[in-house]
Amino acid sequence: MKQLPSINNFIPHLAYDSVIFGFNGKQLKILILEYHNTGFFALPGGFVKRNEHVDDAVKRGLKERTGLDNIYLEHFNTFGSSSRSSPEVMRTIMEANGYEVDENHWMLDRFISIAYYSLINFKDVAPKPDELSDSINWYAVDALPKLMMDHQEIAETALKTLRDNLDKKLVSMNLLPEKFTMKDLQKVYEAVLGKKLRRTSFQRKMLSRDILMRHEKLFTGGAHKAPYLYSFKSYDMAEEVFSPMAN
Amino acid sequence: MKQLPSINNFIPHLAYDSVIFGFNGKQLKILILEYHNTGFFALPGGFVKRNEHVDDAVKRGLKERTGLDNIYLEHFNTFGSSSRSSPEVMRTIMEANGYEVDENHWMLDRFISIAYYSLINFKDVAPKPDELSDSINWYAVDALPKLMMDHQEIAETALKTLRDNLDKKLVSMNLLPEKFTMKDLQKVYEAVLGKKLRRTSFQRKMLSRDILMRHEKLFTGGAHKAPYLYSFKSYDMAEEVFSPMAN
Repeated sequence: MKQLPSINNFIPHLAYDSVIFGFNGKQLKILILEYHNTGFFALPGGFVKRNEHVDDAVKRGLKERTGLDNIYLEHFNTFGSSSRSSPEVMRTIMEANGYEVDENHWMLDRFISIAYYSLINFKDVAPKPDELSDSINWYAVDALPKLMMDHQEIAETALKTLRDNLDKKLVSMNLLPEKFTMKDLQKVYEAVLGKKLRRTSFQRKMLSRDILMRHEKLFTGGAHKAPYLYSFKSYDMAEEVFSPMAN
Repeated sequence: MKQLPSINNFIPHLAYDSVIFGFNGKQLKILILEYHNTGFFALPGGFVKRNEHVDDAVKRGLKERTGLDNIYLEHFNTFGSSSRSSPEVMRTIMEANGYEVDENHWMLDRFISIAYYSLINFKDVAPKPDELSDSINWYAVDALPKLMMDHQEIAETALKTLRDNLDKKLVSMNLLPEKFTMKDLQKVYEAVLGKKLRRTSFQRKMLSRDILMRHEKLFTGGAHKAPYLYSFKSYDMAEEVFSPMAN
């Protein structure tokens, strides 16, 4: 019989969940695990070791469960309802993986989840399922499978946070090549916001925000007018733009 | 001998801390408790009951510790370092209050702190210290006493979050009268940002943000030109302004 993680090594009642958004140049997706023989789909999550920073637990756990390493994660919310945990779901997952679960096992207790999110270019990574899972896959944000417990709510809250902070995220993350066209940028916004935007008003608003530097035109040799290339101003340059009232 | 709270009633290793910002029309302040006979200054914090939503624990605890009721609090970060807790500080506070503390008492363990903040009009409230504290007072954000443990970092992170979200906070909170002048509004921004702003550029930027409705002029009968009165657009109206790319 396999041994479950010991309560001596982990902090009781405390879990993390991570919402990993991936962008492929066209669509926004979320990384979802499917547990062996349960039909349960879940965000990658886990527990915090006794002597571990919560941030480090999330990085370690994400690597163990998905193979992803060196991902920049940000805490965005905490899910603290006393009824969010499900001992039946935990028991089913553990038993389907060949563990024997005592009635009072700590993993069946109430858990508060510290939630993190990340936005990555999913062409850069190759996730691998861990030993608890049948599969790990990217699902489009508007076509997620039914997620277990409150993971749908966690994913939706992360998406709202991403939408609210997209300007900042794009400047600090490498979703786009160093230089890109306004059309490339518009595709990112459309994928994240989940709707088509009008080209002219998108361009006007982006330029008014003063986060872009304009470079030479992209000459493709085609018949169409060559578009300008842009890059993001460095975070330091752009930071004051984001503060509510830079002088 | 007084009895300490029992671990049977609380979730181990989990605390909350709250950063209550108050604005008096001129200055931005933070609510700080001073523990009896210790010289320790702290943010109001506490523990989460076994069957309590974390959000509810914060509201309950804040009421017990400060007398403040019906405060709108928002989670902004989690402090999860394994070295942030200080058993010596906790022991000193408890002993100064007449409690006997066992060596292995749960309150001396490591705690992860779920941090909340709020922005209130401090003329509306009358905080009262709890039985653990000598005093509860408002301190200007640039003249805080030395705070215990990592409470200085928690307060600074809350201030940064408030600065980043000030537009939204002002629309949803009642810091200003329903109708106010541009000068009233500028005072709030100056207090929160901690610097003087130029009147002309402040006005231009606020108006460009499209969160204000202009009303009639404020006739004071004085010799100066009467200023316009403004109100915030309702949150629903203003919400789309805040989304990164409303069409």
